[in-house]
Order: sequence, then structure tokens, then C-alpha cells
Amino acid sequence: MPKTVFYISDGTAITMEVLGHAVLSQFDTEFTQRTWPFVDTRERAIEIRDRIDRLFAETGERPIVFYSIVSDEIRQIILSSHGFCHDVIESVIAPLSEELNMAPHPTLHRTHGLNQRNVARYDERIAAIDYALAHDDGLSLRHLEQAQVILIGVSRCGKTPTSLYLAMQFGLRVANYPFIADDMDRLALPPALREQRGKLFGLTINADRLAAIRNERRTASTYASLRQCRLELSEVEALYRRLRIPYLDTTNYSVEEIATRLMDTLGIDRRIF
Amino acid sequence: MPKTVFYISDGTAITMEVLGHAVLSQFDTEFTQRTWPFVDTRERAIEIRDRIDRLFAETGERPIVFYSIVSDEIRQIILSSHGFCHDVIESVIAPLSEELNMAPHPTLHRTHGLNQRNVARYDERIAAIDYALAHDDGLSLRHLEQAQVILIGVSRCGKTPTSLYLAMQFGLRVANYPFIADDMDRLALPPALREQRGKLFGLTINADRLAAIRNERRTASTYASLRQCRLELSEVEALYRRLRIPYLDTTNYSVEEIATRLMDTLGIDRRIF
Repeated sequence: MPKTVFYISDGTAITMEVLGHAVLSQFDTEFTQRTWPFVDTRERAIEIRDRIDRLFAETGERPIVFYSIVSDEIRQIILSSHGFCHDVIESVIAPLSEELNMAPHPTLHRTHGLNQRNVARYDERIAAIDYALAHDDGLSLRHLEQAQVILIGVSRCGKTPTSLYLAMQFGLRVANYPFIADDMDRLALPPALREQRGKLFGLTINADRLAAIRNERRTASTYASLRQCRLELSEVEALYRRLRIPYLDTTNYSVEEIATRLMDTLGIDRRIF
Repeated sequence: MPKTVFYISDGTAITMEVLGHAVLSQFDTEFTQRTWPFVDTRERAIEIRDRIDRLFAETGERPIVFYSIVSDEIRQIILSSHGFCHDVIESVIAPLSEELNMAPHPTLHRTHGLNQRNVARYDERIAAIDYALAHDDGLSLRHLEQAQVILIGVSRCGKTPTSLYLAMQFGLRVANYPFIADDMDRLALPPALREQRGKLFGLTINADRLAAIRNERRTASTYASLRQCRLELSEVEALYRRLRIPYLDTTNYSVEEIATRLMDTLGIDRRIF
């Protein structure tokens, strides 16, 4: 039976999940993961402690409990369970506090909370998402001077998810523009893109993977044929090389990796939300 | 001068940034944050070590260095710097390894890498983003049976960013539907939504904040007037209560918090990517 991991937080628990996921991926075993956000009342804490203890009684194995809770009273309830409890944030805070010679001030809803201090930055991030949607798939070539990145590539090579991820995670304003079958005879950049050369980043992908993805959308179409995919990809790759546009083969990369490589290549400072 | 924090990783460094951001927010001081992803060659590691050392020479203060690097050779180069170096993942791995009585197997690109094992899950996540876009803003009321969540609310109350965040972060298929001014005389759910009652989640927002957001889009319009915002909000809130649709006031919440509360309220299992 897979070992159970509980994530217990008085906030969203998102930071802990992300970290826990990285940590668990280093062990060659399966885990069942359960998340309990907003654990900020005695009642909720007791309910969760009882679940941990029931699981322990049933399996004879201590569940893993990753937690981050500001209130001492609530934390003690979780610590009184039979779980193996580890404060994931504290294990980084403690050595840092010593190095800085400064006491930490834990507050509720610190990471993903909205407050006077960060609302302007938050609004910029939402504006970046709006921008990505308004400039998705070549929908609008206006206001490209406001873009920080312009993704280009054939249909279904990863432009849209990458644009949205860059907006959501890093607050970047990203437009994207698709080359379509009709462009292939004389492939060239539209004038609006030529004016923004330094922001262009090309995506490409393996032809077999592209054909498979396109087949999901339009089965057995010319659009999804391997022949068509190969043609389009070889044309756009030739364009990237000719115009010296930096580009990336996305076949084996997640949006996180594409986004990271793109920012690294274009020399974009990462902002953290 | 603000203290500098370096995030140094042989992967995307996203996990570390998220954790670092949570940790730093507990200290009452400013930090300058710099991220170095894909540090997987001696040359790049030496370049970064030299930057750390230069900064130390200039300021006389040790920069904070959060790192996660699998290769011993590369790691040693970073550790030979004058930074205060802390392995953020290892501080969680070590106690867990002891508890599990199991050795970790650190591999490159573990968290956000794409491989045979996780590509199917990754494709589902991309499909969820496609679904959110195709069902954004009431664009399509077809295939709502495939949705896991349907967000409803007035224009600009946070439906679109929340839908995209749920798709991106948790792989959920989310549709969203806007109530518009013309609906207000006899506010009712469209038949397609009535059939999916258990998936509905309402959003509302403070009228002043809504008016400010709408003014950004259409200055001095009826649409953005406080009077119109108040009217629409009171109508939809009455609808939520009448039909017993769970709902949330998003005024002081980030997309992370809205998403978390929504999943908690609707009892949706969180999947971690």
C-alpha cells in the first residue's frame, strides 16, 4: 500500500505541495498525497489529527505529515498525532534566521495572500494574463510594443500554454503568433513582428509528436498529417535560422522548462509572485 | 542595501523560488532575488561562484545562496563560494529518508521534467488549459458535462484568471460563464448550467473594487459605474443564495486562495503537477 503524505497548512498549502512533490519524486515508491489548506481552527485541526491517527491505527504505519502552521495551539494539535511531522518551511527559516541575525515574523496567509503591500503587483499579474489572452494565437497584432516576449511557431507546438504560464507565474506580458499552412509558400515575418525582433522566441517540436497532438484535434486531416507537420516545421526552423531568432524544441519539455529556458535565453529577469 | 538571495538549480529553480519566496516573506527586510536555472556545467557554476564572490567583496556581506544541484562536482564549485549556502530540498529529504528507511535517488530535472512516466498526465494538464480557453467567458456551453468546475459571476470578478490557474496548477477542466447587464431584469441560470448544478461556484467582489477594475477597461462607462456594479452584484448574490450555490467574495483573495477555497468547498481532490 502506498504511504500517505498529508500537507497541512493554515494557508493555501501550495508552497508545501510544490516542495513536497519535488522531495517525494526522489524516492522510488508511490505516495498517496492529501492536502488540508486553511487549517486555522481547533475543530479542523482535531478532525485532521483524528484522520491521521485512524490511518495509523489501520495501517500500523506513521503517515508523513508536512505542515506549516503559525498558531502554536493549532500546531500542537497536529503534533500530538501519530504522524511523522516535519515543518518544511521552518527547516529553511531556522538557519537563515541565524545567518541574518534576525527573528522571523510568521504571519497568516503570507505567501499567496493579497494585501495593501502587494495588490499593485498582483493587478499587474492579472493584467499580464489579460494581455496573453488578448494576444493569443495572433488574435491582435496591436500594442505589441507592450509585450515582453512574442512566441512564434506552427499551430499546436506549445505557444498558448507557455504564454499563459509566463503570465501567471512570472507576470510577463506575452503575445503569440501562429504560422499557418497558407504562410508556407513564402514564409516571412509580418511587419508588426519585424519591428519587435528582440522579443521574438521561436518554438518547434518533433513532427511525430506534433502529428499526434493535431490528430487529437482534427483526426485524419491534412492539417494533422505527418507530411504537413514535417513541411511546416522545416519551413519555420529555416526561418528561425535565417533571421537568427532564438528557438527551442519543446518535444521533451514542460511549460515550466520552456518558460525557464526562454527567460534564460532572452535575459529576462524573473519576478517572483 | 537589500541583501541578495541567489537561487541556483540544475533544473528550472521554480520549486526553490516558490519556497524561498515563502521563507523570505517572514523577514522584515528587503531582498534582491536572482535565479540561475540549469546550472549543469562547470563553466556556468564557476561564473556564478565568481559573481557571488564579487558581490561579497563589494558589500562585505555574504549573499544568501539557496541551491539544489545533483552533481557533486558542480555543487562543490558553488559551495566553494563566499555565500551562505543552504540546500533547501535536502533539509526536507534527509529526515524523510530516515523515516522511510529509504535512500533518495536524486535525478536531474526531476520536478518539472517531461518523461515517459508523466507525459500522459502532462497532456491532460495541457488539455485542461485548452478546455478553459474554449469555455472561457461563456464562449461555449457545449461539453459542460466534461467540466469539473463551472465558475459564474459578473464581468471582471476574477473568473478567467481563476479558471486558468485551476487548469495550469491542478489540471482541472473549468468553464466559466458571465452574467451580463441584459440578464439582470430576470436573472436565472441558463438551462445548460442548471443541468450541472453540483459543479457551480459563484464569485462576487466588492462593488468599489469592481468599479475600479472595470474603469481600467472602459473609463467612465455605464458598465464601470458604481451604481451598475452594485446592481449586478446584488442581483447575482441574491441568485447564489436563492439557488444555494456556494460562492466567494474575491475582493481580498489571490487566484491561489480562490482556487484553494473553491476546491475545499466543492470537495475536489487536489492533483499535484
